[in-house]
Amino acid sequence: MSYETLRWEVDADGVGTLTLHRPDQLNAFDLTMAGELEEFFRADAWAEPVRAVVVTGAGRAFCAGMDLNAAGNVFGLDEGLRPTVADFRAAYDEAPYQDGVRDTGGKVTLAIHALPKPVIAAINGPAVGIGATMTLAMDLRLASTKARIGFVFGRLGIVPEAASSWFLPRIVGIQQALEWVYSADILTADQALAGRLVRSLHEPDDLLPAAQELARSFVVDRSPAALGLAKRLLYRNSAAAEPLEAHLSDSLAMYWQSLGDGKEGVAAFLEKRSPSFTGSAADLPDVF
Amino acid sequence: MSYETLRWEVDADGVGTLTLHRPDQLNAFDLTMAGELEEFFRADAWAEPVRAVVVTGAGRAFCAGMDLNAAGNVFGLDEGLRPTVADFRAAYDEAPYQDGVRDTGGKVTLAIHALPKPVIAAINGPAVGIGATMTLAMDLRLASTKARIGFVFGRLGIVPEAASSWFLPRIVGIQQALEWVYSADILTADQALAGRLVRSLHEPDDLLPAAQELARSFVVDRSPAALGLAKRLLYRNSAAAEPLEAHLSDSLAMYWQSLGDGKEGVAAFLEKRSPSFTGSAADLPDVF
Amino acid sequence: MSYETLRWEVDADGVGTLTLHRPDQLNAFDLTMAGELEEFFRADAWAEPVRAVVVTGAGRAFCAGMDLNAAGNVFGLDEGLRPTVADFRAAYDEAPYQDGVRDTGGKVTLAIHALPKPVIAAINGPAVGIGATMTLAMDLRLASTKARIGFVFGRLGIVPEAASSWFLPRIVGIQQALEWVYSADILTADQALAGRLVRSLHEPDDLLPAAQELARSFVVDRSPAALGLAKRLLYRNSAAAEPLEAHLSDSLAMYWQSLGDGKEGVAAFLEKRSPSFTGSAADLPDVF
Repeated sequence: MSYETLRWEVDADGVGTLTLHRPDQLNAFDLTMAGELEEFFRADAWAEPVRAVVVTGAGRAFCAGMDLNAAGNVFGLDEGLRPTVADFRAAYDEAPYQDGVRDTGGKVTLAIHALPKPVIAAINGPAVGIGATMTLAMDLRLASTKARIGFVFGRLGIVPEAASSWFLPRIVGIQQALEWVYSADILTADQALAGRLVRSLHEPDDLLPAAQELARSFVVDRSPAALGLAKRLLYRNSAAAEPLEAHLSDSLAMYWQSLGDGKEGVAAFLEKRSPSFTGSAADLPDVF
Repeated sequence: MSYETLRWEVDADGVGTLTLHRPDQLNAFDLTMAGELEEFFRADAWAEPVRAVVVTGAGRAFCAGMDLNAAGNVFGLDEGLRPTVADFRAAYDEAPYQDGVRDTGGKVTLAIHALPKPVIAAINGPAVGIGATMTLAMDLRLASTKARIGFVFGRLGIVPEAASSWFLPRIVGIQQALEWVYSADILTADQALAGRLVRSLHEPDDLLPAAQELARSFVVDRSPAALGLAKRLLYRNSAAAEPLEAHLSDSLAMYWQSLGDGKEGVAAFLEKRSPSFTGSAADLPDVF
Repeated sequence: MSYETLRWEVDADGVGTLTLHRPDQLNAFDLTMAGELEEFFRADAWAEPVRAVVVTGAGRAFCAGMDLNAAGNVFGLDEGLRPTVADFRAAYDEAPYQDGVRDTGGKVTLAIHALPKPVIAAINGPAVGIGATMTLAMDLRLASTKARIGFVFGRLGIVPEAASSWFLPRIVGIQQALEWVYSADILTADQALAGRLVRSLHEPDDLLPAAQELARSFVVDRSPAALGLAKRLLYRNSAAAEPLEAHLSDSLAMYWQSLGDGKEGVAAFLEKRSPSFTGSAADLPDVF
């Protein structure tokens, strides 16, 4: 598939690099980019050769946020709709990804979250609004020393979106999350690191290679099925009521892996050789 | 309204300062203070001109804890009651804030938590027992270098209260929470900072101005309705089972804000002028 | 009771030390050790004189993980079973601790988690696989500078088990948890400290005394019943949907303690003497 606002390539190890590509608009997020990102994370990213995804921005920005000059953004809503959460839930159950008044950014981040493969943000410059919140649904965030990150919604009269109220407190804790959302300020790279939003800082030229190298370290000689199930277990059970819930789901995941890649993994370990895994992240058992 | 144990003033920017005011008793928490705090956070703090609340203590202490010398504290309970959680829930559903055997501190912290405005603790000295746990329901904690904080319940044969078992692990993580509750020790300001309980330390004379300045930075040119909804989204979705729950509630919040302060916020941004928001934190839509 | 793979002693303060004791196999976890650990945490550890438990390893390792050379490990499963989470739940409801295809490590960590007393891991050397994940169900982790910790499941084609997907994100946050599970690398002691997995590092000879001293500081002049209830409140309410849930359960815990050790604790405090508590961690009221 070809994209208007994205560039995509996969290397021989299965490390894919997705580049937000509207450099003249600082990669601002419009409805075309929203649709293409959702499509990418629901289709191309699931292809067998893709083992991990790095996301970065073309030019000097990561993503300057919602393109407020573009037509058709969220501010063209019908005042008479007055929806409820139940309406949204029914619409979601019927068609999880269809267009509608549900938040556009959230449709993208739910698609990112659903991909059972490592996803790494390489934040190369300004990441503001949806440009910041889309990275929260990625598993790890690396940043350039020139990155600037802003949860600026309060200045615009709107709220943090893209399911960021689920992700942000899990990453940085509730106190830091509240401060950044209340302040609506642009954070420096150092502030983002100190607050544990980003994993590590890198010189601008070193950022993308570092993110790709980290992704590579996650996939060489690892079982894609095991990593995919582990991603689902960690997110889901981070919010489970009791350890018992995790015990039941990890027992089931372990059952399936012990019949699959686990046999090969243990054999390779005992024989001191590299494993040759055959399980696929695109065909995982339901363990919940 | 006038208070016996509290002092309250609001400045021109809407930054209110609430002072626990029993300085001769180190601001110890008695039933009068409990009732007044609950009343304050349910009524006065909701008034339109109030945009954020800073809480501090008069004299050298923040709050020395439950006044164990006062009559009518929790240790006058009827042994024959033998309530269950279901009894408490029924009593709460009927009258969330009435008196009864439900924990007094918790009635205060639920009222603090329910206020859809930023609340900042300025911990100026000893904060012990309920003096410590009441700050956990505030959104951020700043402390004087002379602050001393203690979750001392284990030494008294009682348990951490005021819903602190919900707040503390979300702020400092489960390992640190368990250590502090098991140790029942008095923490220094440096220990509280290292453990991420407090956001920042300040010289004693600088503490209150710093807390007020931080509160001011949260309210000038910000939408009170957007911040109120953001507060609710962050706390509620920090405990939601799935990102989908956050997507449904933030979509609904975004819908309402896009018809309200969002229009003005985006217009002001595009016109490079300060916004003039009209939405109220006291009149938020239900988004859950 | 005597054990084949464990050593156990309790000192005069009630601080017990449990040593994983298969030093010639680097204390590798086999089905005998699994059964004995489960039995220990369900029976011996509940005995009245035991106030806290420190867990360490004999010789140079903490626990090198599942003994992959031993017969009867998880890789002998019947392919025809195809269980569901509902099957596991039904099996658990009928017999929480019986053998079966449910993950062996999880049966141990649920037993550790259910003990209403402080449990401290003293990680003296390599802790890999189940050797790492079993420590997550312990309340605090101290480590030797020679400790090495690895969540290596992805290299073996299997998933993190022992309910670790519930514990790990609560201890280190979701970003760090994902990185360590994806990398499947062996962490140094310094990395484990930086990521907040372990509370503190110690010279090898100082580790066990430090862990025992910390345990002692948790039990001398503390109420065992209050600490047991506090442990349950903190874990359970860290995952509760709303602060109200914590308020209802801590009110009930406070009611019972105010009729029990709380009376003595407050009296001792007012009389400036050491308390003499009589409540037992083995006989706690249900507060949920």
